[in-house]
Amino acid sequence: VIRLAIDAMGGDIGATAVVPACVTMVAKHADVELLLFGDEAVLKTLITTHAGSLSESARLRLQIMHTDEAVAMDDPLTTALRGKRRSSMRLALEAVRDGQAQACVSSGNTGALMALARFVLKTLPGIDRPAIVADMPNQKGATTMLDLGANVDCTAEHLLQFGIMGSAFAHAVRGIETPRVGLLNIGEEVIKGNDVVKQAGQLLSQSSLKFVGNVEGNDIFRGTADVVVCDGFVGNVSLKTSEGLAQMLSGFIREEFTRNWFTKLLALASSSVLSRLRMRVDHRRYNGACLVGLRGIVFKSHGSADVEGFGHALHRAVAAVRNDLLGETTRALERIAAAQAQQSS
Amino acid sequence: VIRLAIDAMGGDIGATAVVPACVTMVAKHADVELLLFGDEAVLKTLITTHAGSLSESARLRLQIMHTDEAVAMDDPLTTALRGKRRSSMRLALEAVRDGQAQACVSSGNTGALMALARFVLKTLPGIDRPAIVADMPNQKGATTMLDLGANVDCTAEHLLQFGIMGSAFAHAVRGIETPRVGLLNIGEEVIKGNDVVKQAGQLLSQSSLKFVGNVEGNDIFRGTADVVVCDGFVGNVSLKTSEGLAQMLSGFIREEFTRNWFTKLLALASSSVLSRLRMRVDHRRYNGACLVGLRGIVFKSHGSADVEGFGHALHRAVAAVRNDLLGETTRALERIAAAQAQQSS
Repeated sequence: VIRLAIDAMGGDIGATAVVPACVTMVAKHADVELLLFGDEAVLKTLITTHAGSLSESARLRLQIMHTDEAVAMDDPLTTALRGKRRSSMRLALEAVRDGQAQACVSSGNTGALMALARFVLKTLPGIDRPAIVADMPNQKGATTMLDLGANVDCTAEHLLQFGIMGSAFAHAVRGIETPRVGLLNIGEEVIKGNDVVKQAGQLLSQSSLKFVGNVEGNDIFRGTADVVVCDGFVGNVSLKTSEGLAQMLSGFIREEFTRNWFTKLLALASSSVLSRLRMRVDHRRYNGACLVGLRGIVFKSHGSADVEGFGHALHRAVAAVRNDLLGETTRALERIAAAQAQQSS
Repeated sequence: VIRLAIDAMGGDIGATAVVPACVTMVAKHADVELLLFGDEAVLKTLITTHAGSLSESARLRLQIMHTDEAVAMDDPLTTALRGKRRSSMRLALEAVRDGQAQACVSSGNTGALMALARFVLKTLPGIDRPAIVADMPNQKGATTMLDLGANVDCTAEHLLQFGIMGSAFAHAVRGIETPRVGLLNIGEEVIKGNDVVKQAGQLLSQSSLKFVGNVEGNDIFRGTADVVVCDGFVGNVSLKTSEGLAQMLSGFIREEFTRNWFTKLLALASSSVLSRLRMRVDHRRYNGACLVGLRGIVFKSHGSADVEGFGHALHRAVAAVRNDLLGETTRALERIAAAQAQQSS
């Protein structure tokens, strides 16, 4: 049985997106149980609304864990950490810590989730800082990228740790036997990278990871590497840049196809092509970032994720548990530590 | 008269892209003269091929400045700086230094061009490091962005200088009266930026620039600011990420529209829509980055730019001269220096 702790009150839409996605999950997967942390009255109402066709046994795999506190999207970190001791986010993380659940999923404030997760779960041995990892679509499939914004100032050692965690993630969640790890750097035509990145390149090439060297921004979408490592500032800018460009381009497509009656007719005729296109780049399919480096699995769904988007985050969390992401990561860290110990002895 | 010094041997395609673009430029603009630095035999042949319909007076505004040395795309910096003293790139820059031309345009190796330009032209008073600036398309028009890769480790002072130079560029080349300057940072939901960026934000808000505060990666394409300032590492990753994503998406569009005879028919029927779309995001229209902060105007065309792409870079260089980019930048620097002197007195 896989048991997930769900922060049912997080995100911009909160429980109205979370509950229907959870209903679908338990309906489809007989071995999944979900603990929904949030306001009992609200959750009951939503479950009644959405769980009409659910079997009795599936219904029993949705458990409400009542709490009336929730971390708001604009709560300062101190409120999340010290003020709201019984927030749905915190209780969900504590359920993972206490072994009641194997993973936590939240759409709440990223900063609060990271801070609380670090406080409640602690980091894995050998990890200085947890990182945010997510998959981006590429020409051939997906690129696992980290850090996406948890750490703005990183040392070469941190980047190596991101490489280890990213490789374990791509192995466990995406099923890639030996993920190719690339280091995000800038073009050969310009002065190559800064000192931290140069040092990280050395550490990565000496490690037991399958390091394929430097990659550039465009490689993220080419699929040159399965895992791309960078500091959280660069990763966040790169992610947001992609979101902005994709949004602009889909706006352009919409504008051009609604310009006049002829183009509208074309759009109608092309609807299957356009919907296939939309599907291929649908950000909801890639929803579900993971906070790695913690003694527990924590998934972060986008704050504005809808039912389908939250469903994808749930699926990713289930996959991570099923494929033992935590064990994979721990073993990878141990291998690296053992190799380092051998090298230095 | 506007006189440009052209490095006719740079880039992947070299003179075969440069010459036809130069022919079109002198044909269209009676006040533009071009000095073409490169191999006389090669340039003469290409001019004869392309200048068939050119008037005698226009033909005279294309002057060949013979040299048989050229900086190769893969030449190390030392070769460009110390080995090839008579390279087309270097002679073109020297023509600007000596007042023979008002701007230089090259498709050559960026690192070599930056190093040579710094050596030959020197930096402007008040500028520690030149930067690479370019315009990116956004929802409403364009965003001027810098630095795109010349400086990987920047101080807050450098970022302020980028703001001043970017603002002067947007004013002179794009004609924006008071450009809104934004500082590239990461989301509010995560730990906000690093120390350098925080300090730069303070310097920018105290300056006489129209500083609109922090912007995120997606704002580049939203047009939240006219000028976006960042260090060269982040800027280069953001630029390359955009290139990669745009390439992937246009590949997807091609694939979906060539899937079967029906979709091919749709593509044919939609050709006007698709070509308008292509036009709106055509990277060639945005070709022509500028090396700012030097005592002379230097434009860098993309190494793989075709005739149309190189033509856009030429146009941008002409616009920069016509609107006195150098004077604008110098005056902006003087204003900032005067304001700082007043503050500290």
